[in-house]
Amino acid sequence: MSLSGTYDDNNLFAKILRGEVPAVKVYEDDTVMAFMDIFPQARGHVLVVPKGVRARNLLELPESKVGQLMWHVQRITKAVVKTLKPDGVTVTQFNGEDAGQTIFHLHFHIIPRYAGVRLAGHGHSNRADIPELEKIAKEIAAAL
Amino acid sequence: MSLSGTYDDNNLFAKILRGEVPAVKVYEDDTVMAFMDIFPQARGHVLVVPKGVRARNLLELPESKVGQLMWHVQRITKAVVKTLKPDGVTVTQFNGEDAGQTIFHLHFHIIPRYAGVRLAGHGHSNRADIPELEKIAKEIAAAL
Repeated sequence: MSLSGTYDDNNLFAKILRGEVPAVKVYEDDTVMAFMDIFPQARGHVLVVPKGVRARNLLELPESKVGQLMWHVQRITKAVVKTLKPDGVTVTQFNGEDAGQTIFHLHFHIIPRYAGVRLAGHGHSNRADIPELEKIAKEIAAAL
Repeated sequence: MSLSGTYDDNNLFAKILRGEVPAVKVYEDDTVMAFMDIFPQARGHVLVVPKGVRARNLLELPESKVGQLMWHVQRITKAVVKTLKPDGVTVTQFNGEDAGQTIFHLHFHIIPRYAGVRLAGHGHSNRADIPELEKIAKEIAAAL
């Protein structure tokens, strides 16, 4: 069953957290990093990732760390809304390959929704324009 | 923009919280109620709703209440997984009609995923069999 297994220290987000792979950061402190999804499902798609834990998914996050992570998720969602003024926003989190999870370090998606615009599929391969992501990230960070 | 507006005290979940409309409950305390989605997107689809707040969405939840709510969401997600043994589980939350929100009291969806089984669309109209939901709810509650 795909919810079982062990944490792989070489997953992409572990590499980003260690600074081995670049990311377009929105926010970072000792407990969390938020960065732009490089394959965004919509304009302004941000990922929020806990630091200092080897948790593949929400089930594996120590319960003492849930509140802090979600406080950041809420705060960053508000900044995304303030900055990009979408018509809606989805906050979502996939556990296991059969739920659509592709990177096995816990992450929350913050996905702005725009009226009449369908989401690009999760796992599509249209890489975003990095200068454009950097511009959006800077704007969101300024609204935090 | 559909993220703005005011809380309607007669939304369906407000009525459920006041006991005016029945629900198949999984868990309840002073801060939260969890119950089965009567139009489940998958077998074992549970909703977690904060009590005592007039919050249409995550943006409107007082930040002091985020941690407690999400502690329950994690705990109930674990119980769903323990009970139903799905292959994956999605935790998701819609803000605004353009994000797919249909009931305007903040709620988190816990949706089990089964290998090879597509989700029923959010907002479909195939009402679940209540005795079957009651059986599942009882099993999840026993795993809490």
